[in-house]
Amino acid sequence: MSSFAPRPIPVALIGLGGVGKAILSQLLSPPLNTRFNLILIANSRLSISLPLPGGQVTPTNYLPILEQHGTPLDIQSILSLLSPSETSGSGIFIDSTGSDIIPSIYPQILGMGIHVVTPNKKATSSALSLYNDIKSKTYPNAPTLFYGESTVGAGLPILSSLKDLVETGDEIQKIEGVFSGTLSYIFNEFSKVEGGDVKFSEVVKVAKDLGYTEPDPRDDLSGTDVARKLTILSRLVPTAPPLEEGYASVPTESLVPDVLSNASTKEEYLDRLAEGDEYFDKLREEAKREGKVVRYVGVIDLKEGKVECKLGKYPTDHAFATALKGSDNIISFTTKRYSPRPLIIQGAGAGADVTAMGVTSDLLKIHERLTTRL
Amino acid sequence: MSSFAPRPIPVALIGLGGVGKAILSQLLSPPLNTRFNLILIANSRLSISLPLPGGQVTPTNYLPILEQHGTPLDIQSILSLLSPSETSGSGIFIDSTGSDIIPSIYPQILGMGIHVVTPNKKATSSALSLYNDIKSKTYPNAPTLFYGESTVGAGLPILSSLKDLVETGDEIQKIEGVFSGTLSYIFNEFSKVEGGDVKFSEVVKVAKDLGYTEPDPRDDLSGTDVARKLTILSRLVPTAPPLEEGYASVPTESLVPDVLSNASTKEEYLDRLAEGDEYFDKLREEAKREGKVVRYVGVIDLKEGKVECKLGKYPTDHAFATALKGSDNIISFTTKRYSPRPLIIQGAGAGADVTAMGVTSDLLKIHERLTTRL
Repeated sequence: MSSFAPRPIPVALIGLGGVGKAILSQLLSPPLNTRFNLILIANSRLSISLPLPGGQVTPTNYLPILEQHGTPLDIQSILSLLSPSETSGSGIFIDSTGSDIIPSIYPQILGMGIHVVTPNKKATSSALSLYNDIKSKTYPNAPTLFYGESTVGAGLPILSSLKDLVETGDEIQKIEGVFSGTLSYIFNEFSKVEGGDVKFSEVVKVAKDLGYTEPDPRDDLSGTDVARKLTILSRLVPTAPPLEEGYASVPTESLVPDVLSNASTKEEYLDRLAEGDEYFDKLREEAKREGKVVRYVGVIDLKEGKVECKLGKYPTDHAFATALKGSDNIISFTTKRYSPRPLIIQGAGAGADVTAMGVTSDLLKIHERLTTRL
Repeated sequence: MSSFAPRPIPVALIGLGGVGKAILSQLLSPPLNTRFNLILIANSRLSISLPLPGGQVTPTNYLPILEQHGTPLDIQSILSLLSPSETSGSGIFIDSTGSDIIPSIYPQILGMGIHVVTPNKKATSSALSLYNDIKSKTYPNAPTLFYGESTVGAGLPILSSLKDLVETGDEIQKIEGVFSGTLSYIFNEFSKVEGGDVKFSEVVKVAKDLGYTEPDPRDDLSGTDVARKLTILSRLVPTAPPLEEGYASVPTESLVPDVLSNASTKEEYLDRLAEGDEYFDKLREEAKREGKVVRYVGVIDLKEGKVECKLGKYPTDHAFATALKGSDNIISFTTKRYSPRPLIIQGAGAGADVTAMGVTSDLLKIHERLTTRL
């Protein structure tokens, strides 16, 4: 027994943006660097095999090395490196891109016996046919593993907790939460328990300047990101509606007011942002009269059979009013067992380090599963 | 691939109190009943092998069947049923007793290649030598698995989240929480954000009548249960103090006031409970003057190198003041990545169904790890 030493698992990391870089950094540091054998890194254009003949790749030197010695990205040759062979078990493909092309070949990758870990929401929040294709090729239908913990709530244990509830036979009644760090920040500032009269347009501009929004804030304010997360969650609940078209099947309230819907460019939209203030002022005023605050939430209500993204009003002593600060996510699960008081998970739901943590904790789960032998 | 079907794992369940009964109920229902093969159940005196020759055991009929057909409990013969053999892989031993004898043989059980799952806090909160003995016989030092998720926070994902943080290379700075459902209820009622003048003795009596306390409330008010949970958590943090004697090494404030420390029986203590009211009144008054409420908390402060159970005062807008209701647990993790805003997990931290869920989710993790083969 004393000689038991789990083998390192080969991994390839595709996508080296903010999150990819943080994954790289975690993979190259203890305790992860003894459990995984990073055999390749790639961005959208170039890839390089590791270890390097002339030295080590580090979180600070990888970019010039990739630019200087990288070869054009070729997914199929990466897959052949990860395939199970006579000499080694199967490897793990980490897709840290925002691509929607790569997720479309997950079924092929998984079919080759290669495990997939990804923070990319596209695969599990798009068409049901792709989702089912992935499911049919992975555990418990096949021995290959697919994990995407960080697609909802970054490093917060949201998907794993929901899986535990479902798999142990609990009955999900309602999942409700603030799923967007950007919209959390905006409404925490705009609609406070203690009141205030800051303009919606001002808050959006500050959020943009702080780097909390996408380059075009309409990408956050459209609610699409929240709809994708709801799709991912609801597909883990056997009694939820099927959402044939994925996030596009989720009724989603847009926060781009009608008066601004004809803005043709991001610049025009930002310039004219104050035109929407009256709409949001009225909303806040209405909530205040009811002793409530306004939050942008995602709701999966299994009794009503509804999945929707919308502006909701919450009493000033509700967790979504009192507990939320900054850009935190908060998600509550009301179930047969956790009722009337829900199970609540709260914390940073975005950011490179915590998103990478969701990815590397998935990697560790695969490592443990592949190295337990009796 | 389409013929992939994970094998059911043999399990034996020892301990049929409230939690054991709920585990039994979850094990006999879908989806768990297809993944596990329950080969034996036992209470502290009797055991019975399954399946029964004359029919099925159910959550309602097991007790008379056990009384009528059970044979005297013999742990060693149970272990021989779970040992890996030519025909089957190793099984899982579920210890749902409150015994401290059974945990002392966990190293022997694990050494036989039998996995252990338990809600029993004794094994991991007692002497460091036993803890180290268990560690040396389990993953990642050996391929045998040991899980005890429900020893802290019942079904809440507390231990698994802490493991994820540590294993992905985050740096734990502080863990702070309300870890006792009983003490949560007592202080949520006694010291409210909105004030109130209910007597401490009254709240304790109501808690006792509602069945929220142990038969002798001093077993909750001693703080020992919280000290055990802190021990379990701190042993997962590499930089925490070693706690040689387990929970006994944790400085623990007792809530049995000096004036009552000479009560010799539970009855005398309950009769004289009001004698302690002045002490708690003063405490609440003091907190109120500072704009705070009183909570009984466990704190692991890695900067200060301290692990302690104590009465703490928290501002009226702190999560421990506003978010807590009923007998909920709340646990916050402040780490390098989750700072300055902690990761918070909240919900029922006691109760048969949610505690059993912690156990059965551990069972599922073992099932998944043993049935992934590539």
